[in-house]
Amino acid sequence: MQLLFLGTGAGMPSKQRNTSAIALKLLEERGTVWLFDCGEATQHQILRTTIKPRKIEKVFITHLHGDHIFGLPGLLGSRSFQGGDEPLDLYGPAGIREFVETVLRVSRTHLTYPIRFHEQMEGVIFEDEEMMVETALLDHVIPSYGYRITQKPLPPKLQIAKATALGVPKGPLLAQLKSGKDVVLEDGTTVKSEEVTEPGDRGFVVSILGDTRFCRAAAELGKGADVLVHEATFDAETKKLAGEYGHSTILEAAETARLADAKLLIANHISARFLPEDEKKLLSQVREVHYDTAIAHDFSEFSWNKQTQEMRKI
Amino acid sequence: MQLLFLGTGAGMPSKQRNTSAIALKLLEERGTVWLFDCGEATQHQILRTTIKPRKIEKVFITHLHGDHIFGLPGLLGSRSFQGGDEPLDLYGPAGIREFVETVLRVSRTHLTYPIRFHEQMEGVIFEDEEMMVETALLDHVIPSYGYRITQKPLPPKLQIAKATALGVPKGPLLAQLKSGKDVVLEDGTTVKSEEVTEPGDRGFVVSILGDTRFCRAAAELGKGADVLVHEATFDAETKKLAGEYGHSTILEAAETARLADAKLLIANHISARFLPEDEKKLLSQVREVHYDTAIAHDFSEFSWNKQTQEMRKI
Ligand SMILES: [Zn+2]
Ligand SMILES: [Zn+2]
Repeated sequence: MQLLFLGTGAGMPSKQRNTSAIALKLLEERGTVWLFDCGEATQHQILRTTIKPRKIEKVFITHLHGDHIFGLPGLLGSRSFQGGDEPLDLYGPAGIREFVETVLRVSRTHLTYPIRFHEQMEGVIFEDEEMMVETALLDHVIPSYGYRITQKPLPPKLQIAKATALGVPKGPLLAQLKSGKDVVLEDGTTVKSEEVTEPGDRGFVVSILGDTRFCRAAAELGKGADVLVHEATFDAETKKLAGEYGHSTILEAAETARLADAKLLIANHISARFLPEDEKKLLSQVREVHYDTAIAHDFSEFSWNKQTQEMRKI
Repeated sequence: MQLLFLGTGAGMPSKQRNTSAIALKLLEERGTVWLFDCGEATQHQILRTTIKPRKIEKVFITHLHGDHIFGLPGLLGSRSFQGGDEPLDLYGPAGIREFVETVLRVSRTHLTYPIRFHEQMEGVIFEDEEMMVETALLDHVIPSYGYRITQKPLPPKLQIAKATALGVPKGPLLAQLKSGKDVVLEDGTTVKSEEVTEPGDRGFVVSILGDTRFCRAAAELGKGADVLVHEATFDAETKKLAGEYGHSTILEAAETARLADAKLLIANHISARFLPEDEKKLLSQVREVHYDTAIAHDFSEFSWNKQTQEMRKI
C-alpha cells in the first residue's frame, strides 16, 4: 500500500500545489487504486505517475467544494476512453450524484462502465474480506467527511517446520491447515490448525479527512491510525481565519493526531500563502505536540512497510 | 490584439497539449481578454501566463464536449476569488447555463459577480462600437459553433499638417475635426473634417471554430479573415476517422482556409497520436493547398501588427 499525494493545496491551484486528490494505491493488496477527492486537473497529475485510470476502483469524496470535485468529470471520461470497463464506486455527500449525472449528460459523455453512487454517509460504508471503510461527519462550512480505511488482519502464517515435525506431509494438507482447518493424518493423528499457525499480521489503518475545524470526530476517525492525513490550511498567526472558514491550523491538526494517538501525521491542504521556505516554521509550531509530522507535497509518496508495520516516505 | 493558445489538444489532456482554450487578448483595444472554450485546467495554464482571470470579460464556448468546458467552473470560481467583480458574459449552446448553474449550486460556489448567459446562437451575438461577434453552426456530432470576431474600422486619422496649413489652431478644434465634425475658424472660414482626415485603418477579423467536419459554414465564418483557427484532429492517413467522429483532417482545414481566402490558418485541436516529430509531415499534407499554415502549440502566441495589418507568431 502506498499513499500518493496528487494535490495538496487549498482552494485554488498554485504553481506549487494542485487542488485536492490523494491516491491510495492498493496494487499489491487488490490490484486497484482508491482515490480520495478529485480536484480540477487530477487527471493531469495522474499523467505524471504510473497510475492507470482504469485501475481506479473507488472514489471517495470528502465534500462538494470545487477544489475537491471539479476534476471528477474529466477523470471519469478519461477512465472510459482509456479502456476502463469495470464498474466504479463513487462515495460522497448527497449532491455528488446530481453533479456527476448533470455534467455527463450536458457534455454528452458516454461512459463504457457503470458508476455506482453511494450517498449514504454514515458508519461502515464499505466492507469486504480484506478492507473496511468507515466515515463520519467533520466540522466544516458545508458537510465534510473523513474516511477511516482499515485493512483486516492478514491470513494466519503457517509454521512449516512445526507441521513437518508433527508428521504433516508436503501437499494439500498444509494448505488446509493454513486456511484454519484441522486435518487427520494417515496414521489417524489429528493436527489442529492452531498448533501449526501463528496469527497473521495486523493490517494498516489509514485515516484521510476532509476540510474541518478541530473536532472530536476527526480524532475518532484517526484513533490509533498508522497514518492520519489532516488538513492544515492555516497556522498560528492565521488561527482566527481557520475558525471563520471552517479549517484547522497545523497545530490543531497535531493536537488531533495526539488525541487520536495516530502514528504519523501528514499535514495536507496547505494554503498557497505558505511558501516552501515557510514549512520549517510550520513544522516548528507542531513539534511540541506530536513527534512525527510530515507536510505533504504534490507527488509525495508514503509506503506501508509490512515488516516494520510503519508508514515511511519514499 | 494577441491570440494566445492555452490548450491545443483533442479529447484528453496529454503531457504536450492541454484540452481546448484560446485567449483573445484585447488589452490594448478594450483592456480585457476574451476566452474561447475552457477545457479542464485552463486556469492552471493561465497561471503560467500574464493573464489575470478578473480581466476576462467574455467566454465563448463552441460546444459542450468535456474537453471544451470542464475547466469553466474552476475558472469562474478563481475569477471570483481573485477579485473579479465585473459581470461576465458567457456565450454557448443551450445547456451551458444548466451546466454552470448546477455545478456552482452543488459545489456551493458563490461568485462575487453576475454571469450573463447567452444561449441564442445565431448571427450577430454581440456588437458594440468597437467589435462584432457572429456565430454559425458547424458540422460535428453535437451542435458545435464557430465564431467570427470583427474589429470595426478604427477612427479617422487627423492630418495635422493639412489642418495647420488651413489655419486651424492647436487645441479643441483639432479634436472636433478628428471626431468627424466640421469647424468654423475665427475668420469665418469653414474647415471640413473630411478635408483634413483620412479613413482609419480597417480592423482585424479573427475566426475561431469549434470541432467540425469540412463544411460550408466554416468557410463562411472564415471569409477573408486575418486568421482562421480551425481544428485538425486527423490527417490524410486517418481521414476515415475524421468523418466518423465529426472532425477534420489538416488538409480539410487548409481547403476551408483556401475557400475562405483566410490570410493565416492556425491548425488546432491536434490529436495526441501526433508527436512533435510528426508535425513536419502534417504540414507537408497542407502546403500544396494553402501557403501559410501554423500548427498551434500550448502557449503559442500570435500578434496583430497594426502597421502591416498581419498576424504574426511572437
Ligand atoms: Zn478544500
Ligand atoms: Zn474537442
